[in-house]
Amino acid sequence: MTYSPQIQTLIPLFYIGWADAVLGPSEIALIQAKLIDAEWLSEADKELIAEWSNPQNPPTDELLKSWAESIRQTAEKMPDTEERISLAKLGAEMACTQQEDAEDKDWLSEEVIRALKEIEKSLNVSGLEQFASIFTAYQRANERKERIEKPGFEVEKLQALLDDEYGDIRKKVFHILRDPIFKSAIIPNKENYREQVLTWMKLLADQGLGALHFPVSVGGQDNMGAYAAVFETLGYHDLSLAIKFGVQFGLFGGAVLWLGTEKHHEKYLRDIGTVALPGCFAMTETGHGSNVRQLETTATYDPKTDEIVIHSPTPGSRKDYIGNAAAHGRMGAVFAQLIVNGESQGVHAILVPMRDETGNSLPGVTISDCDYKLGLNGVDNGRIRFDQVRVPRENLLNRFGNIDEKGNYSSPIENEGKRFFTMLGTLVGGRVCVPRAGLSAAKTCIAIAVKYALERRQFGDEDKEEMLIMDYPSHQRRLMPLLAKSYALDFALTYLTKRFEKRAEEPDMREIETLAAGLKAYATWFTTHAIQECREACGGKGYLAETRFAAFKADSDIFTTFEGDNTVLMQLVARGVLHDFKKELGEGGIFGMVEFVADRFMTSVREKNPFAIRNTNEKHLMSSEFQLHAFEYRERDLTVSVAGRLRKHIGRGMAPFQAFLRCQTHLLELAEAYTERVVLEQFIEVVDACEDKDLKTILIRTCSLYALHTIESHKGWYLEQDYMDSFKTKAIRKVVDKLCGQLRDEAVGLVDAFGIPEDCL
Amino acid sequence: MTYSPQIQTLIPLFYIGWADAVLGPSEIALIQAKLIDAEWLSEADKELIAEWSNPQNPPTDELLKSWAESIRQTAEKMPDTEERISLAKLGAEMACTQQEDAEDKDWLSEEVIRALKEIEKSLNVSGLEQFASIFTAYQRANERKERIEKPGFEVEKLQALLDDEYGDIRKKVFHILRDPIFKSAIIPNKENYREQVLTWMKLLADQGLGALHFPVSVGGQDNMGAYAAVFETLGYHDLSLAIKFGVQFGLFGGAVLWLGTEKHHEKYLRDIGTVALPGCFAMTETGHGSNVRQLETTATYDPKTDEIVIHSPTPGSRKDYIGNAAAHGRMGAVFAQLIVNGESQGVHAILVPMRDETGNSLPGVTISDCDYKLGLNGVDNGRIRFDQVRVPRENLLNRFGNIDEKGNYSSPIENEGKRFFTMLGTLVGGRVCVPRAGLSAAKTCIAIAVKYALERRQFGDEDKEEMLIMDYPSHQRRLMPLLAKSYALDFALTYLTKRFEKRAEEPDMREIETLAAGLKAYATWFTTHAIQECREACGGKGYLAETRFAAFKADSDIFTTFEGDNTVLMQLVARGVLHDFKKELGEGGIFGMVEFVADRFMTSVREKNPFAIRNTNEKHLMSSEFQLHAFEYRERDLTVSVAGRLRKHIGRGMAPFQAFLRCQTHLLELAEAYTERVVLEQFIEVVDACEDKDLKTILIRTCSLYALHTIESHKGWYLEQDYMDSFKTKAIRKVVDKLCGQLRDEAVGLVDAFGIPEDCL
Repeated sequence: MTYSPQIQTLIPLFYIGWADAVLGPSEIALIQAKLIDAEWLSEADKELIAEWSNPQNPPTDELLKSWAESIRQTAEKMPDTEERISLAKLGAEMACTQQEDAEDKDWLSEEVIRALKEIEKSLNVSGLEQFASIFTAYQRANERKERIEKPGFEVEKLQALLDDEYGDIRKKVFHILRDPIFKSAIIPNKENYREQVLTWMKLLADQGLGALHFPVSVGGQDNMGAYAAVFETLGYHDLSLAIKFGVQFGLFGGAVLWLGTEKHHEKYLRDIGTVALPGCFAMTETGHGSNVRQLETTATYDPKTDEIVIHSPTPGSRKDYIGNAAAHGRMGAVFAQLIVNGESQGVHAILVPMRDETGNSLPGVTISDCDYKLGLNGVDNGRIRFDQVRVPRENLLNRFGNIDEKGNYSSPIENEGKRFFTMLGTLVGGRVCVPRAGLSAAKTCIAIAVKYALERRQFGDEDKEEMLIMDYPSHQRRLMPLLAKSYALDFALTYLTKRFEKRAEEPDMREIETLAAGLKAYATWFTTHAIQECREACGGKGYLAETRFAAFKADSDIFTTFEGDNTVLMQLVARGVLHDFKKELGEGGIFGMVEFVADRFMTSVREKNPFAIRNTNEKHLMSSEFQLHAFEYRERDLTVSVAGRLRKHIGRGMAPFQAFLRCQTHLLELAEAYTERVVLEQFIEVVDACEDKDLKTILIRTCSLYALHTIESHKGWYLEQDYMDSFKTKAIRKVVDKLCGQLRDEAVGLVDAFGIPEDCL
Repeated sequence: MTYSPQIQTLIPLFYIGWADAVLGPSEIALIQAKLIDAEWLSEADKELIAEWSNPQNPPTDELLKSWAESIRQTAEKMPDTEERISLAKLGAEMACTQQEDAEDKDWLSEEVIRALKEIEKSLNVSGLEQFASIFTAYQRANERKERIEKPGFEVEKLQALLDDEYGDIRKKVFHILRDPIFKSAIIPNKENYREQVLTWMKLLADQGLGALHFPVSVGGQDNMGAYAAVFETLGYHDLSLAIKFGVQFGLFGGAVLWLGTEKHHEKYLRDIGTVALPGCFAMTETGHGSNVRQLETTATYDPKTDEIVIHSPTPGSRKDYIGNAAAHGRMGAVFAQLIVNGESQGVHAILVPMRDETGNSLPGVTISDCDYKLGLNGVDNGRIRFDQVRVPRENLLNRFGNIDEKGNYSSPIENEGKRFFTMLGTLVGGRVCVPRAGLSAAKTCIAIAVKYALERRQFGDEDKEEMLIMDYPSHQRRLMPLLAKSYALDFALTYLTKRFEKRAEEPDMREIETLAAGLKAYATWFTTHAIQECREACGGKGYLAETRFAAFKADSDIFTTFEGDNTVLMQLVARGVLHDFKKELGEGGIFGMVEFVADRFMTSVREKNPFAIRNTNEKHLMSSEFQLHAFEYRERDLTVSVAGRLRKHIGRGMAPFQAFLRCQTHLLELAEAYTERVVLEQFIEVVDACEDKDLKTILIRTCSLYALHTIESHKGWYLEQDYMDSFKTKAIRKVVDKLCGQLRDEAVGLVDAFGIPEDCL
């Protein structure tokens, strides 16, 4: 294909612009501002430019290759003397090669060159490596600062492990987030902030990022993993954006996707994916947050009009804390008790229009504002009351419960309780995603604190330079276990996402639900803790808003509460573990249990052989066999003992609820032990699969620090159980100290591998 | 004395206004607005009113008694039928009794009555009990809501224990803080917030509260305890106000008071106390926060002009994070290396004017703004650079180092290091106060969380009402230990304040410094932790700005860093403990040490007798003897073992700095053990001194929960040391559970005794 000379001038710019497969909003805006009205371009040129600037339609590889070839040809003919040749100049040269007659080149005015240079300036140059390979005279403008300390492994390889298959999409999101339009104000006014976040969310949708998990037929890519990676990456930037994004595409979109059927997908998902239809996930009520099953909002089917009537009968039934409600939402997926023919069928979701196109709330819908919150003030949380609001029968999201045209209710799941849990189970995606964004916030704070500790000096030996604060053992003890745990959680959350993606292949969703609940709670508590430690580790500097701890701390705080209160989730986890244990006991039932308990003593004697109890050998302590065994032992012991206690209580006639209540702290301990075991298991799998020697060394140390530091934190329990003696717990402390020192030397590489662009720190 | 009839109408209002010995700013403002221009009052009347409205000049007891008497006489004659008689009506009646002729009463118009009623409305009615005793027809307008659960002890008595001798001043401060003018905006703009806090601070100064610790001669009351109580009470309301208050009166004022001499007191303290001279405490620099001794700002004496030249020679020497600097400070107590005759004399404080009366910075002084912070945005933190700024020699705060008229330096303390520590030691008042305000924030959050848990229901037995979340064992485990520890810290901080007040009687300030450092770190870490737990315990509700967790969490966060980074302070504590240990070893020195170590084994054998190790008897576990012994044992063991390790390292030729570095985590553990022992000791003293049976019961439980919960958190250590066996640690867990349940029943009383007015929660 041959281009006009005018288009030729633009090829180097478009080539670089698309070099990392993404064109950001400001780049697009500038191209449009500078070119769409330009007199020197023909209508045909402009059409081509519009095609090349569509963020959802990157050039094919072939096209890029042909551009590269023509650039190379021109570049080779240019003198190599200039230290830095601009893309604009190169473009002009390309046009000139084609137009040899000087007069034809009148259009190439100073003004045009200036416009090209402005576009060039706006381009992010991170993709220039590719360009350099075809045109050596083009030097990278800003060489990356030399590393403070050279890591003993290849950072890129470690980053690839964390990126899994989503490196490209992460890069794309980072590219967009570094667009100047995404720069956030410090302590902004909530009204402005909400509008800004809405704009940002739309820009992301324009790039096709909101619909990634939707079916291809409605504009999506059917790629939950990519969606989760986008959500996670937003967490490095602004958690209000991440949460608003999650409310629109994950919760509201997810309710339609997973609770609705074909007709709902057809009708709504496209508009949800483009934010043409902003919506809410209206589940929580003032009176009921954790106990969803007792929601009070009613959805009563009226056969006379073939409508469903949505109503808030009590003050406590008001929908509360609903994201996207206070300002922007136009429709809600409203969770309510469905009543058909006077009979309650339990909680179902119904699509209820809330606002008209101009933003006014519809008749019968009363919306109020949750006002300022501790954080996430870019999300417009609100409250909704319904006064006999009527919607068509079709608005029932009817995958798990349908009302037919005759007004009869039916469901593929007979049992109401099971139906309820199945419906909620499909929504577990939120729990899969939330901890990932929280972890991104924690990782950013860890990266900031590590870099600060490697610059900041305070106190020291007499007459010597003051010491880096990173060289204080207490500082290493503070930061290195956080660094190790962030790796452990990253791998575990990737594992969870994969299982969630392939959940259709699982015999029982319950296992994934247990896993998601445990990891959500464990990871978000870690986030709160890690951000706090890192803030303190940066002293007064960490208190300044510019260092971003303020935003991360405030915004991530609610992560321990929403998408399931952590303490409630951990009880769910324990029940899941006990459920599996019961299955494991199999046919034997109670008798099996007794046999098992007898067996347990045998095992425990075997396990507690004096050698293992007292083995303080470093190799033994560093071995994954010992570490995993210790984690498994803890989980198993807590399972068996709590099962025994429950059996005793219930056997004596106690109501199950009361029996579980009696064992509550025990159950929470079990849930933690289960989650930790899974996390370690996944980390060990990653280590075992690693074939790069240097990388494996650092992974072993990181994994061992996670494992041994966790064991150390439970040493009271292990000593109580005689699983270890005090010589061994003391030896573990020493190994933890040593590992902290070793990781200190690799800390820069470990945080660089998070892949957070330096200007995002 | 006889008053005019016009004044008679006002007597009931003034009587009630002064009933709790304080007239708030809005009350004063309203009285002035309504009365000062009133035509119905004579000039003489107005003078009297001005006298009665001066906040620093409350009416004498005699005057109040005479008012009461005349009110009573009038009231007795009035019909007792009206359910509620207004103060305005009563005042009118008093005027009428005096003026029997109807015509004389023309001035008593509807308009006058309306003005009186407005004043009445603005009066806080908390003092009406006193009034009721003389006039029974006057009913308290708002009966206190009935307690949710009746406590098993007298709340007032427990509150009196916490109040110590400062109940009245606390009441006064609360009264002022409840004035509408002190209502704060949610998430305010920093510029407005800073001005608001400045206004508030001036209002407090108008009430004489800023100068309480200053000498009587300059308008103070020489009452450090009262000052600390005021500061602490501000912590229940707004921490920006508390910190701005502390910067002006405690740090800036304290530097002049404690580092300056008579001439400085005379010249400055009065204006500091009234905020006529707003000032800064300019110690921290960008390059040095914790390591104050290495500050880089220079103060060079110039004998030619008899001036001191203040200069910031390096970027790192810029003063940083300085409160009151960005907007309001007009003078700074600047800490700098004093150089006299070319010789450095170490860090001294010099008063340096920064801004003129109009707020412009003075020549050579460059001030910039730290901008938004994670919290405390009502405090104007800033940065200051000095470029050869000259001040008269007299501006040296010369208590510990003087330059005489001949230009020679002298100091009562020869050794520079000792001089430095002595100077810093006098400033320990900040560390005495800061944890108290932090504790107030924590107590407020605990009170909110406890009350929420006693209202909020979620889940429950089938077919029964849902359960109060307070009845979940995990919730009790979450909140009750916090409640117990807040009591423990309160008593310990009161003890510290008293010792600080009487420090002149102490042989060695070092002990108080150690105590202050330990309690500051221990209490502020507790604050951060407690607020976080309470936020989570209130779920989504706790995330709304209106519930105030947002402000408390953000504002108190820096408490762990300022006035000494907690980790650095804890190392200071450990050094203090080791210093005392060395003194204890006495003449014997190293040999004494050896003897002691031998002795230690004997003791440890005695202490570890099998009976004590295994004693799981509840009475034993609840005994203060066992609890205190466990705490003391931990402190002593850690002291002896770290001393031994240090001695070994140093004996082998290691530099002391390196030796201490090697033992750093060990030292931090020791510091914690020391602090916990002191806290428990003080709590036990309070319990032992209590003579009220019911109160003693609850105090024993609260103290035991603090003690046993702390022991439980260290159970790994105790098991490692064989101080307890696993039967005993498990028995302790059970007692902790039981105590949590018992305290749950008294939780309302325990938080009510904090004395926080209900409308401040």
